[in-house]
Amino acid sequence: MSQETMSRRDALKFGVLGAGAAMLTASQAMAAAPMEKDVKFDEEYDVIVIGSGFAGLAAAAKAAERGLKVLILEKMGRVGGNSVINGGAFAVPMNPDQAAFGIKDSKELFINDALKAGLGINHVEMLETIFARALETFDFTVKCGAKYQTGKKPTWFGGHSVNRTIVTENMSGSAIIQPMAAFVEKLPGCKLLTRAKFDDFVMSNDGTSVLGVTARINYRFDKKLISDDMENTSGEKKVFRAKKGVILASGGFSMDKIYRKMQDPRIAYDQDATNHDGATAGALLKAFQIGALPIHIDWIQQGPWASPDERGFGVAPLLTQQGLFVHGVAVDVRNGKRFMNEMADRKTRADAEYVILREAPKAFPVAIGTYNTFEEQIYAAVEKGLQSGVMKKFDTLDALAANYKIPADALKETIKVYNETALAGKEDQFKKQTLKDLKAAPIDMKGPFYAIRLMPKPHHTMGGLKIDTKARVISGNTGKPIPGLFAAGEVTGGTHGASRLGSYAISDCLVFGMIAGETI
Amino acid sequence: MSQETMSRRDALKFGVLGAGAAMLTASQAMAAAPMEKDVKFDEEYDVIVIGSGFAGLAAAAKAAERGLKVLILEKMGRVGGNSVINGGAFAVPMNPDQAAFGIKDSKELFINDALKAGLGINHVEMLETIFARALETFDFTVKCGAKYQTGKKPTWFGGHSVNRTIVTENMSGSAIIQPMAAFVEKLPGCKLLTRAKFDDFVMSNDGTSVLGVTARINYRFDKKLISDDMENTSGEKKVFRAKKGVILASGGFSMDKIYRKMQDPRIAYDQDATNHDGATAGALLKAFQIGALPIHIDWIQQGPWASPDERGFGVAPLLTQQGLFVHGVAVDVRNGKRFMNEMADRKTRADAEYVILREAPKAFPVAIGTYNTFEEQIYAAVEKGLQSGVMKKFDTLDALAANYKIPADALKETIKVYNETALAGKEDQFKKQTLKDLKAAPIDMKGPFYAIRLMPKPHHTMGGLKIDTKARVISGNTGKPIPGLFAAGEVTGGTHGASRLGSYAISDCLVFGMIAGETI
Repeated sequence: MSQETMSRRDALKFGVLGAGAAMLTASQAMAAAPMEKDVKFDEEYDVIVIGSGFAGLAAAAKAAERGLKVLILEKMGRVGGNSVINGGAFAVPMNPDQAAFGIKDSKELFINDALKAGLGINHVEMLETIFARALETFDFTVKCGAKYQTGKKPTWFGGHSVNRTIVTENMSGSAIIQPMAAFVEKLPGCKLLTRAKFDDFVMSNDGTSVLGVTARINYRFDKKLISDDMENTSGEKKVFRAKKGVILASGGFSMDKIYRKMQDPRIAYDQDATNHDGATAGALLKAFQIGALPIHIDWIQQGPWASPDERGFGVAPLLTQQGLFVHGVAVDVRNGKRFMNEMADRKTRADAEYVILREAPKAFPVAIGTYNTFEEQIYAAVEKGLQSGVMKKFDTLDALAANYKIPADALKETIKVYNETALAGKEDQFKKQTLKDLKAAPIDMKGPFYAIRLMPKPHHTMGGLKIDTKARVISGNTGKPIPGLFAAGEVTGGTHGASRLGSYAISDCLVFGMIAGETI
Repeated sequence: MSQETMSRRDALKFGVLGAGAAMLTASQAMAAAPMEKDVKFDEEYDVIVIGSGFAGLAAAAKAAERGLKVLILEKMGRVGGNSVINGGAFAVPMNPDQAAFGIKDSKELFINDALKAGLGINHVEMLETIFARALETFDFTVKCGAKYQTGKKPTWFGGHSVNRTIVTENMSGSAIIQPMAAFVEKLPGCKLLTRAKFDDFVMSNDGTSVLGVTARINYRFDKKLISDDMENTSGEKKVFRAKKGVILASGGFSMDKIYRKMQDPRIAYDQDATNHDGATAGALLKAFQIGALPIHIDWIQQGPWASPDERGFGVAPLLTQQGLFVHGVAVDVRNGKRFMNEMADRKTRADAEYVILREAPKAFPVAIGTYNTFEEQIYAAVEKGLQSGVMKKFDTLDALAANYKIPADALKETIKVYNETALAGKEDQFKKQTLKDLKAAPIDMKGPFYAIRLMPKPHHTMGGLKIDTKARVISGNTGKPIPGLFAAGEVTGGTHGASRLGSYAISDCLVFGMIAGETI
C-alpha cells in the first residue's frame, strides 16, 4: 500500500473510479445480457457451473452423479479459487467426534452463534439448512477422497459455543479441493475447463430465464489491470447452452479493486487481501443485471491480524492470534500507545487500525510481545515468521522503537502499565479479558521482543445475491426463482449476516453447492 | 406488528418470500428492460424525472430552467414522497445565520461529522460536493418560494459539531416541496403527472444507453399488497422517450416489505416505518438490472424512538427524544430492567430493542418518566401524545406496571437505583451522560408517570446505486456513467455511509437533484 493510494487525497477520492476509469475500455461486457435469438450455441450441456471452489465442485459432483452432463468454467489457470488456499477448517455440527468427546451441540447453538457474530441480520433458514446437512456433506467429501483430522476432539473457533470444527489433514482446503476435483473429472459427462471466463448469461427471448452463458476459453487473468473483468479482452468467445441451468459459484470480491472500495472506501486500490487474485465481482454483477437481488453487499470481513509485509493470508494471523495479540500489545507507532483490545472481534479491531491508517497511511500499527506470549503449538511458525521477515526480533525495546519510529519512552510506559495491570488482575481501558485473567506480567521485560506490522486485509465478502434454501436465485422482479439460475457459496449473501464465523464458510459452500447440484 | 409476523417462526423464515411468493403474479415487470426496437414511443421529452420529492423537483426545476422539456412521473396520488412529510430540517454549512451568531463551520467539520456517524465508509467526494453547494441550493429553494426560520441561531442536531441546520417555517418538508412543485409546474415545458408509475428503462438496441422509460398512467398504488411493485397491474401503459436522459429520484425503500426484510430480517413484514407507503425498491432494482452498482444496500436506519401505537413518524420521537429518553428510563417489560443507554446512537438503541423483540415479539419496551423529564418546548406535544393515546399517564408506578405487565417491584428498584445514581453524579452501567451530568433525581417519585411503548421504525435507507459527483449513474460493466441515466437522493448510496446524520438528507437530495438537472 503506497502512500499515494491511501493518502488524504485518496481518502477524498474514494468511490470515484477517477483516473482508473479513463483507462477502462468499452468491451463486449458493456452490452446487456444476450438473448437466445442473438446467439448461436457452440456446445450444449445440462449444467454449467461457474467456478471450481468448494461450492462449484460440490455442485458439479452432485449433478454429474445424477447422470447430468456438466461443464465447469474456471477463469484462473488453476482449480479451486480461494478454497484451495483456505485453512481447511469445516464446521460440522453434530459430528461423531463431538459425540465421542461428549460435546453437546444443537441447532440452536449453531444458529445463535452465527446470529451473534452476524449482528442478527442473518437469514436463519439458510443456517438451518447448513445445520441439517453439514454432516452428510462432510461424509460426501470423504467419499470423494477428502482427508481430515478425525478421531480427536474437534477444534474450537472464536465465537463458537462448542468445539465443532473438523480440520483437514494438511490444514488447507486443498485436502478437500484436490480429491473432489479428481472425483468430478472422473465422473462421466463432467468436464472442467480452466482459463475459461464467464462473460454473461444467455437469456430466453422474453428475458425471464437463463438458457446458457457466453464465455471465453484460453483466457489469461491479468492481475495488473485495475479491473480484469472490465479490461481484459483475452481469449476466444464461446456460447454454451445449459439445458437445466447455470450454477453460479464464482466466489466473493475481496480482490475487486473497484467494487470493494465502493463498499468500504478505507480499502486502498492496491491493498492486499487474504484472497487469490481472481476474487472479483464480475459474475456477481452480471447476476444483478438479470434480476438477482443484492443482499448485505457492503459487509466485507477484514483480517486485523494481517501484515503489509507479506502477501495474502501469510503467517502473521497465526503469530498474532496465538501469540502477540493474546498477551502482547498492539501500539500506534505515532505515540507508542495501545489503541484497541487486541482480542476484540475482527471488525472492531480492523476499524481501529483504519482510524490510524486514514490519518497516516504509512503508520501501520505494530504488535509487540516476547517469546512467552506465543502458544507452544506455533513455535514452528515463529521461526517461519522471522525467516520471511514479516516478524522482527529485537534485543531491546529501544531498538524496536527505533526501527518503527515509535517514541521509546512512551512505548516503555505503555508496556509497564500493561504489565502492572495484568499483575494486579485489573481490567485495562479496553477490557481485554485475556489480560485480566492472567494475573502475571505478560511481557517479559528482559526481551528479546518480537514485532509485526499490522494492516487489515479483506478476507470474506458476506454480501451477494439472494438464494432460497434450494439454492435457487431469487428475482427482484417476481420474488420467485429466476428459471435456470442457481448459486452457492461466497457469491450468495444473507447466511452470515454482518460477519461470518470462522469455519462456517466451508459448510456454507459445500452444503449449498451440493443442494444446487441436487435441485437443478 | 402481530405476534405471527415477528414470532420465532417468522424469524426462522425471514429472507424467504415464502407464502407471499405464491401470491405474486408474473407481470410485465418480469421481462428484461425493453430496447428501442421493441417499443413505440408515445411521447417525447428531453428529460424524464422519476419521483417528485426534494431530488426530483430540484432536478426538474434546474433542467426546465435550462429550457428543457421535462416530464415528472410520480406514482402516488400526491406530490412529494417522503419529502413532504419530512421534518423540514436542512443542514446548510456556511450559512449566513451561522456567521451572524459566530458559529464557525468548515468543510472538515461537515465531512468528519458524517464520517463519524457513517462509520468511515462514506464516499467523501459526495460530501464535499454537498458542502460546496448546499448554500446555493438553499438559496435556490428560497427563490422557488420555500419558507424557512431564518435570522436566528441555526439548530443543533445530534452528531453535528456545530449548529448548521435551518428549519422550515412549518417544521415540515412541505414548506419546500409545495412551493417548488408550484414553481416547477409554472415553468414552460415542465409537466408533472401523479399516479404515473415508472416500470422500466428503454435501452438502446446495443443495451448500453437509456433512451426513455415505460410507465403506466392512472396507476393506483395499493398498500394492501405485499409488493405493489410486483403485483399491481393497474394503469395504462405508456412509453416515453427521454432525449437527454432519465433522472431517477425515486427515494428509499423503508416500506418495501420484502426487500427491507432481506437486508434486515428483524423487520417484520407488516412493521410500520416513518415513511410513506410508496417508499419501495422497484425503481432501484430496475436500475441494478441495467448495470447500476448496489452500494451499502443493507444499512437501514431505524428510529428507536418510535412507537407501535401510532402510524408513521408520529409524536413519539419528540416525546422520547426531548423527554422520556433524556432523563427517564426505557425498560424491558419482562423484567422491569433498563436495557440500553436511552441516549445512545440510533443503531445501538434499535439493536437493543430488537434483541427483546426477537425473543418476545409482543414485549415492546416501555419508556417511562415524569413531567419534569419533558423539555419545556414540547409541552404541547405532551398533550397531543396523551390525546392520541400513544402516551399514557399513571398516578402510580404500580398502575403503570400493571398496565404493561411489568414486575412492579423490579421496576421500582430500577428507578430507585437510577435516581440514586444520578443524585450521586455517578456513571450508570450504560454510561448515560445526561444522567451523570444531572446530579439530581431525574424521576419524580410522586408521579404522575408517563409511558410510551417503543418499536424501531425504518426511517432511511442509506444504500442505493452509485453516482459520481455529476449525478451520473456508474455502470458495473464499464466503470463509467451509463449514458442517459442520472440519479439523486435516497435512491443513491455511499454519501451517508452506514448512518445518515439528521438534516443531511435534504441537503443531499436537493444538491444532487440540482446537479442532475444541470448535468443532463
